[in-house]
Amino acid sequence: MMSTLIIAEASLELVPEEIVQHSAVRAHARRLGKEPRSILLDRSYHHAAMLNLKDAHRRGRPDIVHLSLLEATSIPLYYNDMLRIYVHTLADKVIVIGRGVRLPKNYSRFVGLMEDLFAKGRIESAGHTLLSVEGMDFDSLLAMIRPSMVIGLSRSGDMLGAEHVASTIKDASNACIVVGGFPKGTFSAHVRERFDRTVAISRYSLEAHVVVARVLYEVEKALLGIC
Amino acid sequence: MMSTLIIAEASLELVPEEIVQHSAVRAHARRLGKEPRSILLDRSYHHAAMLNLKDAHRRGRPDIVHLSLLEATSIPLYYNDMLRIYVHTLADKVIVIGRGVRLPKNYSRFVGLMEDLFAKGRIESAGHTLLSVEGMDFDSLLAMIRPSMVIGLSRSGDMLGAEHVASTIKDASNACIVVGGFPKGTFSAHVRERFDRTVAISRYSLEAHVVVARVLYEVEKALLGIC
Repeated sequence: MMSTLIIAEASLELVPEEIVQHSAVRAHARRLGKEPRSILLDRSYHHAAMLNLKDAHRRGRPDIVHLSLLEATSIPLYYNDMLRIYVHTLADKVIVIGRGVRLPKNYSRFVGLMEDLFAKGRIESAGHTLLSVEGMDFDSLLAMIRPSMVIGLSRSGDMLGAEHVASTIKDASNACIVVGGFPKGTFSAHVRERFDRTVAISRYSLEAHVVVARVLYEVEKALLGIC
Repeated sequence: MMSTLIIAEASLELVPEEIVQHSAVRAHARRLGKEPRSILLDRSYHHAAMLNLKDAHRRGRPDIVHLSLLEATSIPLYYNDMLRIYVHTLADKVIVIGRGVRLPKNYSRFVGLMEDLFAKGRIESAGHTLLSVEGMDFDSLLAMIRPSMVIGLSRSGDMLGAEHVASTIKDASNACIVVGGFPKGTFSAHVRERFDRTVAISRYSLEAHVVVARVLYEVEKALLGIC
């Protein structure tokens, strides 16, 4: 039995063209020994450069994707090949996480891996594709996955809890869970309209990695028991 | 109702005296603009310098502490001031995490904060102590906390699951959960002897941050319900 996680509208992208010349970006790229347009946008380092960027408050947080993916790929559900994982970004790219991928726990190494992925389009090991990325919007991703049901997780959804999500996943043959990969606010209307159900698992505004950890743990318990 | 988490024998320390002169350490310190003996030991950068270090396989992994603390401090149980958190290190120092602390999600900034903490002994904000560190062994920490019961989490413990741990915590007035903060192996015999119970929550060897996330989530459900 397979379950699917989409980290949607994720705050992960290369430095956009508008700010590649900014001094904060150039200084950071120089420290890394890379070209400004080949590094990830990161608010920790590019805050000054992001002040006039469109939708800046939702951008430049690859740490959110890093922590969420570490949660999703460090659990028995994934080890047992019962979880497919996709990252859909704010700029409509989709990263497919292959089977048995062990992502770097060190943040700088994760960032380097993502930069490598954006440069090459895929990361392979021994003929097996670990990661791939291509331009794809949220609708096209759903069309590819063809889920029987799409469950969006949002604080503003119905307060049903993570166990409820897990039992729904268990009953559906091919349901898909969507967690926002952005720092603040909520899903765009366009993505939200694709949800068959919108569920809250807490009254608190939880970090994406906490939502991922909790929901996948409940899914794992529902599908595998304590394992 | 208060619960307590100890991340024990954590792989977090400053670069030890034996290797401050090693070229890998000096080069990394220079890039950071710091003295070699004031930076954290980190296998990602100091692997070559660690080859002859005693117990090297258990050392130099501050990322384990970072991820575990992010799990513990990003949850309603902690927001509601129902969780005390301590980090006990392999070198017998104890870091006390204060109330309402928001740790940096960016790994480099977390490392910088720990370096600052080791240099100053405490980190304060508006007269409130966020973090403090002092020399203290595991026994002395337990003597300070005076828990009614100590539950160690280990793959080699009794396979009872995280829910069982949570219900035990709920029934005890002041129980303490201990999770290992090291990359491989198990607790030292000395620490293990202090456990009243040793419990496994999975047959898999889970990362420390996954153990922390799962157990605290179950404790939160037991004490607060879905909140």
